[in-house]
Amino acid sequence: MKGIVRPSLILDEKKCKANITRMAEKAERLRVDFRPHFKTHQSREVGNWFRQQGVNKITVSSLSMARYFADDGWDDITVAFPVNVLEHELINKLAGSIALNLLVESEESVQAINERINHSLNLFVKIDSGYHRTGISPASSERIDSILERIKLHKKHRFAGFLTHAGHSYKARSKQEIARVHAESLGVMHQIRRKYQDRFPEMIISVGDTPCCSVMEDFSGVDEIRPGNFVFYDVTQAVIGSCSLADVAVCMACPVVSKHPERSELIIYGGSVHFSKDSVAEQGVQTFGRIVKITDAGWELPAAMYVKSLSQEHGIVHATPAEQASIKEGDVLGILPVHSCLTADCMGGYIDLNGNPIDHFHYA
Amino acid sequence: MKGIVRPSLILDEKKCKANITRMAEKAERLRVDFRPHFKTHQSREVGNWFRQQGVNKITVSSLSMARYFADDGWDDITVAFPVNVLEHELINKLAGSIALNLLVESEESVQAINERINHSLNLFVKIDSGYHRTGISPASSERIDSILERIKLHKKHRFAGFLTHAGHSYKARSKQEIARVHAESLGVMHQIRRKYQDRFPEMIISVGDTPCCSVMEDFSGVDEIRPGNFVFYDVTQAVIGSCSLADVAVCMACPVVSKHPERSELIIYGGSVHFSKDSVAEQGVQTFGRIVKITDAGWELPAAMYVKSLSQEHGIVHATPAEQASIKEGDVLGILPVHSCLTADCMGGYIDLNGNPIDHFHYA
Repeated sequence: MKGIVRPSLILDEKKCKANITRMAEKAERLRVDFRPHFKTHQSREVGNWFRQQGVNKITVSSLSMARYFADDGWDDITVAFPVNVLEHELINKLAGSIALNLLVESEESVQAINERINHSLNLFVKIDSGYHRTGISPASSERIDSILERIKLHKKHRFAGFLTHAGHSYKARSKQEIARVHAESLGVMHQIRRKYQDRFPEMIISVGDTPCCSVMEDFSGVDEIRPGNFVFYDVTQAVIGSCSLADVAVCMACPVVSKHPERSELIIYGGSVHFSKDSVAEQGVQTFGRIVKITDAGWELPAAMYVKSLSQEHGIVHATPAEQASIKEGDVLGILPVHSCLTADCMGGYIDLNGNPIDHFHYA
Repeated sequence: MKGIVRPSLILDEKKCKANITRMAEKAERLRVDFRPHFKTHQSREVGNWFRQQGVNKITVSSLSMARYFADDGWDDITVAFPVNVLEHELINKLAGSIALNLLVESEESVQAINERINHSLNLFVKIDSGYHRTGISPASSERIDSILERIKLHKKHRFAGFLTHAGHSYKARSKQEIARVHAESLGVMHQIRRKYQDRFPEMIISVGDTPCCSVMEDFSGVDEIRPGNFVFYDVTQAVIGSCSLADVAVCMACPVVSKHPERSELIIYGGSVHFSKDSVAEQGVQTFGRIVKITDAGWELPAAMYVKSLSQEHGIVHATPAEQASIKEGDVLGILPVHSCLTADCMGGYIDLNGNPIDHFHYA
């Protein structure tokens, strides 16, 4: 690729579309609705690639992001985040024009919504199926019941179903460990389904995290999946076992600015303002990105070299004297990101393999 | 403060100006030039507060950032980053209109600059004074000498002096440890000065990191200091001992969206896309931010509560049932950031205590 002079995030359309197609076909095979999470790519153009696969409903992680996609014609959006009632003006605006699905997990939030939102809303009750970040414990029947009672008090607000995110699958490091998380999470949701299905026969059970959706085949009792990261994948997902490095659809391109073979390091222009600052342990070594070779057609896997640390604008790459012998200052290295969602958010945009820009939502 | 409905970065002008004044007065007292690093605030408005203190030369961390400030009238700018020769077009543009000071640490980069840059340039040789990220070992006399020889080959390029960054001061956790780093770094620069001062009597010795510049008083043999983070400080600098929490001039404001007293947690709208993902250990506890109380006049220190982890849009706050008894969903919590440079970069802008916007450079 020509013309790259500073840190740039390359998006390989073909790999990305293959990831989208694979997950869309899997959802069809499993007979579950596919409501992909758009927080990873945050791009209208990538959103169009989902449309081409027949996707017509999506998930986002903030009301601002919902507006970004609503303005692009998406009309059925779930905001998979505990509802922020302070944004009632934006909620009213969105709920007045699209099918808006929000998450609640307390009576207080339902009460605030009832008081402030005058448009039709679908409310999912967030269940904690083992991740212990947000959501209600399945054992808290009274809390769930009082939320359901309170939702009924507003005639335009509808209970839509139960939603969970088994985010502890990100701690898995093998298919067996992913399977254990999946079984635990699905067990909780099955229990919830059995308890409420007679009262709410149309309720939806919604799950979705990239490791489970990539690897597991049994989604019985589930109506909808919401994976997000799979659209790009990243080094973390490869370490978890959700994908191979060849599936990763985004790659940072960073100029080499300094070489220090005497300590097996070289310095790239590309730091935590470009990558964010997430890392993952690979065989005991903490990694902030994996080096690949940029080519005319994209990039080639893999190199043993990796990013060992990041400061604000510097990346420090581990590269033996032999590995860096063929690398010059002014060369551009490829780096597969550890966490593609955060890197895409830091970069705020992509280029395709021809160097053309691809949009990314900007927090306003 | 009224009107905050989503994550916002508040900048307390008074605290910030006090930090600027204190450092400017210290530089005057120490009889060193003050060339503050603008990579922390990246703001033209904050830049003007420096101008009001008589500052007329600055440091930045990228050529793009240099352009942002050159376009605002700054005409003496050091880019404290190993020169990225791929950006020769931008270098030529800047060097043709302002006093541009670049860093070199290899013969290759000087050769590339000689070939591609036709305007006046000041070149600093970067010295590794103990941090071991970039720079030339002071023992590599031959390498330094051949760089100096090569600079002379271009009649518009001038050797400006030796520059270092003792970034290992960030690992210090007491005044004694900062003093040890400072002594080591200054020792190296004194040795360099002795060796080259007869040949280059006008050369500048430039140092600068926030811990040493905040705490140390002896800068003999130094001509110029370039601290940056001190403009805002942050929780990390308080842990290092560079400042107190009362000096921190920026504070995130984040809505509370969910409470989980049963596990001493509450959830804020504010995650790694807002804070970045840096953390610091405080007495053995890993912290991603310290909770403060937002008031009409800014914020009040401190609360024992802290951010224990971050996902993309969620922050998980450690707060005992007693601590969160008086906190409701929809309240807005203040959070002092762990690393203000990265948080400011993620947020891409500030609000002052009246809610008015303050600019921040956007990577284009």
